[in-house]
Amino acid sequence: MTMLNKKKFSYTVNKKNFKIQTIGIVGLGYVGLPLMLKFTNSKKYNVIGLDVNKIKLQKLSQGISYISSIKNSELINIKKNKIILSNEFKNIKKCDVVIYALPTPLTDNKDPDMSFIRDAILKSKNFFKKNQIIILESTVYPGATKDYFANELKKKFVIGKNFFLGYSPEREDPGNKKFNISNITKLVSGYSKKCLIKCENIYNSINIKTKRVSTIETAELTKLFENIFRSVNIGLVNEMKLICDKMGLNIYELIEAAKSKPFGFKAFYPGPGLGGHCIPIDPYLLTWRAKKYGLSTKFIELSADINNSMPNFVIDKINHSLNQNKKNFSNSKILVVGVAYKKNINDTRESPSVEIIEKLILNKSKIFYHDNYVKELEIKNNGNIINLKSIKISSKNLNKFDVVCIITDHDYIDYEMIKNNSKMIVDCRGRFKLAKNIVSA
Amino acid sequence: MTMLNKKKFSYTVNKKNFKIQTIGIVGLGYVGLPLMLKFTNSKKYNVIGLDVNKIKLQKLSQGISYISSIKNSELINIKKNKIILSNEFKNIKKCDVVIYALPTPLTDNKDPDMSFIRDAILKSKNFFKKNQIIILESTVYPGATKDYFANELKKKFVIGKNFFLGYSPEREDPGNKKFNISNITKLVSGYSKKCLIKCENIYNSINIKTKRVSTIETAELTKLFENIFRSVNIGLVNEMKLICDKMGLNIYELIEAAKSKPFGFKAFYPGPGLGGHCIPIDPYLLTWRAKKYGLSTKFIELSADINNSMPNFVIDKINHSLNQNKKNFSNSKILVVGVAYKKNINDTRESPSVEIIEKLILNKSKIFYHDNYVKELEIKNNGNIINLKSIKISSKNLNKFDVVCIITDHDYIDYEMIKNNSKMIVDCRGRFKLAKNIVSA
Repeated sequence: MTMLNKKKFSYTVNKKNFKIQTIGIVGLGYVGLPLMLKFTNSKKYNVIGLDVNKIKLQKLSQGISYISSIKNSELINIKKNKIILSNEFKNIKKCDVVIYALPTPLTDNKDPDMSFIRDAILKSKNFFKKNQIIILESTVYPGATKDYFANELKKKFVIGKNFFLGYSPEREDPGNKKFNISNITKLVSGYSKKCLIKCENIYNSINIKTKRVSTIETAELTKLFENIFRSVNIGLVNEMKLICDKMGLNIYELIEAAKSKPFGFKAFYPGPGLGGHCIPIDPYLLTWRAKKYGLSTKFIELSADINNSMPNFVIDKINHSLNQNKKNFSNSKILVVGVAYKKNINDTRESPSVEIIEKLILNKSKIFYHDNYVKELEIKNNGNIINLKSIKISSKNLNKFDVVCIITDHDYIDYEMIKNNSKMIVDCRGRFKLAKNIVSA
Repeated sequence: MTMLNKKKFSYTVNKKNFKIQTIGIVGLGYVGLPLMLKFTNSKKYNVIGLDVNKIKLQKLSQGISYISSIKNSELINIKKNKIILSNEFKNIKKCDVVIYALPTPLTDNKDPDMSFIRDAILKSKNFFKKNQIIILESTVYPGATKDYFANELKKKFVIGKNFFLGYSPEREDPGNKKFNISNITKLVSGYSKKCLIKCENIYNSINIKTKRVSTIETAELTKLFENIFRSVNIGLVNEMKLICDKMGLNIYELIEAAKSKPFGFKAFYPGPGLGGHCIPIDPYLLTWRAKKYGLSTKFIELSADINNSMPNFVIDKINHSLNQNKKNFSNSKILVVGVAYKKNINDTRESPSVEIIEKLILNKSKIFYHDNYVKELEIKNNGNIINLKSIKISSKNLNKFDVVCIITDHDYIDYEMIKNNSKMIVDCRGRFKLAKNIVSA
């Protein structure tokens, strides 16, 4: 069934201009939603948004954004009924172009979990038709676009002749105020030269700049390389943080100092651990594939080791702070400030805050959290789910906590108030100058 | 004895302006020489250049530069007799300010070799006088400035009161056409606030921009961090090169593609191994010191592992190329193009070319090299020294070599000629598009 009232989301065919194309976006998350809006706002395409999550579709139809970096006002063209929103894959057959923007998480064994892509292909494949163009935007291991899409398509079509396949990895950075889909150059690659050109034309038609690469595998590996670069440099600066901690030096002062070198340096910042859907996950996609070639990916593994150890470093610092006041976890109240995986957004996927809160709860601490972006939070505890709610903070209630731990430093937070009213602060983001009651973590 | 004719290098005292200060630079190498010229050209100081190497002093006195990035014409003020050049440390007592720019290599065990600094202090210490300012510019382990200078100075002076000590790490990048001593911000730090201000004033007085850091150790560790950052990122891209090599992808295309991302990425390039006095050496200064704190420096060690394995990767590629033509090392003639550690300079310190040539000679290959920057090269062979001389290359002699290996890609070289006239090319710098007779290494 089509989830949404067909009348309400009726399909606006532009009869005057028979050339207008219909584009389908499969997966309306952090990548698919801004992409769908970009196509919609260009007014050059009829747009169909497909997602299996009915709650998301319902929210969009009401003009309510579930991504903090996209305002409700940006959804205006959805409310104006210009977009079909559906969970039915038969809509694929209406499309001239289909872009897949699906998650590619890891299994518990840190192997690529391709189930979202596999399922989407299974649901789509009966609706693929001649001369369609399909583009994958998900981050995948080198070879995945061919393994999953090309192998399926070849059963019915001649790719490059009567069907076109491309890969164009997303480069979204939610919360980045300077760069978004409109000014980020996209890599494009195709199964053949003709595929490449067709894919490129689609993005160029809505004013997205593109850069061609010679093969799909090159584009797939480049996307991983970009995220591995970040993971490794965050790992390095986290290792430097541990060294500074022992030597009594301030890692943030070091970074600011190094930034004064006008070449050869780029600042990355330490933190309580990695979060989000990209940096903690993508490197492993290469690790998995490299095994096929008998290669090890040592930098990836080392940065994962160090980055994954950061939450424990924070826990140790909290314990150290409690100890100063003759407390321990089990008789203390702890406030975590910021639970999104990075500042000024509402995304808690892989957030180190969640891991830290889970460990503090296991240690019998009484845990509270504050985050205006994340009003509710699910925490696992011995196989059960605990639902926490964000509490308000004020000069009156801050001194009730034995430790206030700044994990994610959203810009809206009043740090001066926290400084002036907290017994002990564990600061994972370098927000405060160190003092007797402020510990860097 | 003063090496140089005293008359010729007479000291020009500016009697009209009694405030003019005398500055001594100890160590006239890649750091000290441009620094000495900068002070000289400012015309605000009397300048004394000290070095234990008489050949260097002789060349300078004749207006001949031994550093390819400094032209003879830049030595004009030396020839005009405005500078005292000497190997006698008693000149220290004439100085208001002494800047030490000495090498800090490693011992065979990869521990810091502080002998140049220790020796210079031994030779200087009897000539230190009240109210002198001493600045160290060498890259050192965190704590070294105090261990070596402060501990000696404290015997006779009260640092910060009647003697002033600072640390300001050099950031020279010979061959860099955009950045040099005149537009690179320098970090400055001092034993005390007064020391810091005095050191800062000296650099500022000759229009060098400075950035203060709070402690000498912070400046020492920041300098190491900058070079570790480079070493790690070169290690990462070398690991990616190995992965691309196995997957049949082009690392240079990947880097160009990743560079199109307008944030979060910075390009580093793979190569045949690390060279120069900084990147292969400096990271170990931190590794050594970190042991005192029970810390490991895993990123440093991993990048060293990978970067140090690169010459062997090149050797393997040369062997592979020879094998294609039914040859092996011992019955082949090999031409190495470029022996400086990086392009457009004449510095061969730690150059991977030297290691590669040594290994090829051990394997009984007949080795020739071409490098207009480096006319002669010393190669170790079973405890003996072999002196090689750069040969000219032309369309006529290139095809006499079984393999031409591009290790350092100076800009002056005619790559088209090499491509058109060589039997096999092993390309360590991505200069060529791959072809039947061109192998990427």
